[in-house]
Amino acid sequence: MKKIAYLGIPGSFSFIAAKKYFGEKIDMLKNKAIKNVFMNLMRHKADYGVVPVENSTTGSILETYDQLMESGMTICGEIRLKIHQNLLGIEDDIRLKDIIKCYSHPQGFSQCESFFESHSWIKPVFTSDTATAAEILTQKKQKNEAAIASHETAKIYGLKILKNDIEDNKNNFTRFVIIGNKKNKSGNKASIAFSVKHIPGSLFMALRPYVDLGLNLTKIESRPIFGKTWEYIFFIDFEINNDLRSFQEMINEMKDVTDFITVLGLYNKGEIYET
Amino acid sequence: MKKIAYLGIPGSFSFIAAKKYFGEKIDMLKNKAIKNVFMNLMRHKADYGVVPVENSTTGSILETYDQLMESGMTICGEIRLKIHQNLLGIEDDIRLKDIIKCYSHPQGFSQCESFFESHSWIKPVFTSDTATAAEILTQKKQKNEAAIASHETAKIYGLKILKNDIEDNKNNFTRFVIIGNKKNKSGNKASIAFSVKHIPGSLFMALRPYVDLGLNLTKIESRPIFGKTWEYIFFIDFEINNDLRSFQEMINEMKDVTDFITVLGLYNKGEIYET
Repeated sequence: MKKIAYLGIPGSFSFIAAKKYFGEKIDMLKNKAIKNVFMNLMRHKADYGVVPVENSTTGSILETYDQLMESGMTICGEIRLKIHQNLLGIEDDIRLKDIIKCYSHPQGFSQCESFFESHSWIKPVFTSDTATAAEILTQKKQKNEAAIASHETAKIYGLKILKNDIEDNKNNFTRFVIIGNKKNKSGNKASIAFSVKHIPGSLFMALRPYVDLGLNLTKIESRPIFGKTWEYIFFIDFEINNDLRSFQEMINEMKDVTDFITVLGLYNKGEIYET
Repeated sequence: MKKIAYLGIPGSFSFIAAKKYFGEKIDMLKNKAIKNVFMNLMRHKADYGVVPVENSTTGSILETYDQLMESGMTICGEIRLKIHQNLLGIEDDIRLKDIIKCYSHPQGFSQCESFFESHSWIKPVFTSDTATAAEILTQKKQKNEAAIASHETAKIYGLKILKNDIEDNKNNFTRFVIIGNKKNKSGNKASIAFSVKHIPGSLFMALRPYVDLGLNLTKIESRPIFGKTWEYIFFIDFEINNDLRSFQEMINEMKDVTDFITVLGLYNKGEIYET
């Protein structure tokens, strides 16, 4: 049975992403930080890792990029989750006006601001993450307390949905990457990182090879290194239509116009699942 | 006296950034979310706003970009803070081994992971932000409790520094932007947003005018819109060396190769301050 290291505890979004990607027949290894997921992979304590890499509302998770750069691990897959938040309780016969407190990460509350403005008697209690909020509620078993988390998390902890989809932004997606030790030999998407000299036009020159080959860019980001404003790392995702020869040709050409270049992974574009 | 709307409560990093940028003689207006800062500006309840836009560890604050796009407000300045975290207490004669709990935002704890691993008897209590942690500690006045926050925050709440610089990453910077109603007429830096058709080479074509003019790019980021993977917004910062004619020429040329383009602000590059 495959062993999967993921960020968080059972019910975290990385846990849900891992189950959607690999199915139910996997052995799961929880991790309190992204770097621990990578460490478990490097020590061969897991076959794959699942960590968030980008959120549509809050942006890239740079810790994942840093670990990819440092660890030598590779991206071998991706999956996207559409994030819904729900008010969960111990029993479903409680009225919202009788709920006195609710557990969640500060971001869980800020994602559900309108709900808590119109239910202002519910006192927020902050936790380290949303799955932990569900876990605390399960342990405390107080009927007049609640937690904010996903449907899947409710199922895992045997909690009831008191109110569905209380998030303000109905278009909140998170992209997760599947991390492994061994590079894929095929895929329709690639992620690369490179740096260029901080002179006018250097990024433009570095991008020329990909334009010449007609590849499609799906993400570009410069890594802010504030202490060294003259040094940059760029992260780029491409659609490569399984044309590995063109892709390799592009990487070779980019080597001439970059200081440093590395392929973070070759993989198939991920499906979107609802949570 | 100028009135400045900022993110958070007294002692927040935006509060500190506002004081460093405008000096002490300002009237301060606290805000619980970035969108409230913009709302106060749009309703002329403040002259300027101060909000974070980018952190060297966690990346861009996309909410600020979204508000800039929607509100029509403009960037008229920037400032960078080097983020230090400290353990604060009510009195300075307490020993670390007698501290039983500590208040902070979950991110405050994750930034000081090594410290809490080696002081594992201190129980973390999560708050909505680091300044609120300092405020709670001040209200509770418990000698054996602590909070994680900056030196400046300690000063504001009359708290003592129990241990300096407990953060793991000694190179954590946050960039803040000064937001206003009225566009600057000069500056050595500019931020723009634009979108292009999702066809091979479209970003490359859009960037050509800036290369032709020899301007220096200091940031580029594609905004992830997961639901619409064929539509993109790019955010770019340039150094323009006060050459406004070249800059205007570039914007005009980019209009021909973009679907949409807007100048988010023209301003002077910000200084770095320690917190």
